[in-house]
Amino acid sequence: MKNIAYYNGKIAPIEEMMVPMNDRACYFGDGIYDATCAVNHVPMHFDAHVDRLYRSAELIDIRIDMPKEEMKQLILDLVAQVEGDTLFVYVQVTRGVGMRNHAYSGAATGPSIWAFVRPCKMRDPYKAYPCITMEDTRFLHCNIKTINLLPAVIANQRAMEAGCEETIFHRGERVTECSHSNVHILKDGVLKTAPCDNLILPGITRAHILDICARKGIPVIEEPFTLEEMMDADEVFFSSSSALTSRVCAIDGKPVGMKDEKTFAIIRDTYQEDVAKECR
Amino acid sequence: MKNIAYYNGKIAPIEEMMVPMNDRACYFGDGIYDATCAVNHVPMHFDAHVDRLYRSAELIDIRIDMPKEEMKQLILDLVAQVEGDTLFVYVQVTRGVGMRNHAYSGAATGPSIWAFVRPCKMRDPYKAYPCITMEDTRFLHCNIKTINLLPAVIANQRAMEAGCEETIFHRGERVTECSHSNVHILKDGVLKTAPCDNLILPGITRAHILDICARKGIPVIEEPFTLEEMMDADEVFFSSSSALTSRVCAIDGKPVGMKDEKTFAIIRDTYQEDVAKECR
Repeated sequence: MKNIAYYNGKIAPIEEMMVPMNDRACYFGDGIYDATCAVNHVPMHFDAHVDRLYRSAELIDIRIDMPKEEMKQLILDLVAQVEGDTLFVYVQVTRGVGMRNHAYSGAATGPSIWAFVRPCKMRDPYKAYPCITMEDTRFLHCNIKTINLLPAVIANQRAMEAGCEETIFHRGERVTECSHSNVHILKDGVLKTAPCDNLILPGITRAHILDICARKGIPVIEEPFTLEEMMDADEVFFSSSSALTSRVCAIDGKPVGMKDEKTFAIIRDTYQEDVAKECR
Repeated sequence: MKNIAYYNGKIAPIEEMMVPMNDRACYFGDGIYDATCAVNHVPMHFDAHVDRLYRSAELIDIRIDMPKEEMKQLILDLVAQVEGDTLFVYVQVTRGVGMRNHAYSGAATGPSIWAFVRPCKMRDPYKAYPCITMEDTRFLHCNIKTINLLPAVIANQRAMEAGCEETIFHRGERVTECSHSNVHILKDGVLKTAPCDNLILPGITRAHILDICARKGIPVIEEPFTLEEMMDADEVFFSSSSALTSRVCAIDGKPVGMKDEKTFAIIRDTYQEDVAKECR
């Protein structure tokens, strides 16, 4: 198949899949999701993504009644049906279906499970990309991967309008993360990245990068950094399951980074090797 | 009919209405809404609600291609088909249907129009209600009536679990609003209510209350007030199209207000008279 969608046991092409209007996704964005890429039909960091899906659900009081192993099998079955070397794999769990009512006790069926798989292109990790910045006006639960994504939507749209690849958020002077990726800097051979608090998503690629740094002897400081530090960094790059490790060459029209290719290349190339190994 | 739902020209009972999975409501909460009650099949403050619907849409870059008069007729036609003295009237506009992609240029059809009408019970304005408080962790766009409502959902759920009627949000010491209503205090015969900035929704009932105060000679201060001021107020009440003017008797288990029934009753009774007049 060209692509496939799943909703509570129903299967259809994504464009044809219909869901109940009363699913609480529709009125409240009352749900969470996770996403990764599958290379050669192997979802990258699969266990970590499924673990985070369940953790996100718990954090908003949703108990997924499907065991993790069953969820993984469901996703693998969908992945197996779609043609393509690299696929985008998306899973969403919402609080279920019920008449619109803010409070949810007794107001909804059990959780709804949504998923889709479609071909995708991963970002070229050997290019460098321009970005813009924007004040981070999101809610204070950015550690949870919810579908309340309107500020991220607007921020990403602004990046596209500016001919850029990502929007880097900051709360005042403090850089947080991007519209759908984490952001890191290298300075004097040291990687600096924001700590996992409620202002950023605990990225799975981010965790993988920290692991690479440990293996390769690159020191890491998990502390907030400022806009000024970022503009003055040797390298700036953002990461996600589809962005991989994307090098930044300019921010708000000003050249940045691109001064420590050696260290950046260790991270980028090790990441590429790890993915190649994981996905055959 | 018992209730009715509308989605882009399609009509069905709410429980049976299906919408495309690819509507951007489902992945991003990428839309806005408005809601009011209809009494005797006349939607309360109808023009103001429709105006706010279009204003919310504009604020997130959605251009509703249906003229306001046509939108009003569409809603009135739905209202006319549902039985009941008091009805809940809900309209939602999302950015449309398209393959999931944060940025939206060219990624979606034109806006989707959603609506439903169903019987409802308005809150008894002659009772007083207990509330709880909660730190306001929402995004900084609370002036826009978006469907990114997860923090409001959680807050309202917490109120229900505590046997209370509403959750009053505060950012640090500053009281903002409730999970789905505005909140006001009376002290020494003066009404104090938060100003219309990005931290509160410009409530239509709130505006109506300020108009009543002007007509009845009750002084108004539109300035932020603190938790301490609220706990020490002569009266605390919250307002919305379905909450009307709801008096608060306790907050977090402590008795509050209930000390200036005379002034509160002027507001409450005038509001009731105005609604009775507007809706025949």
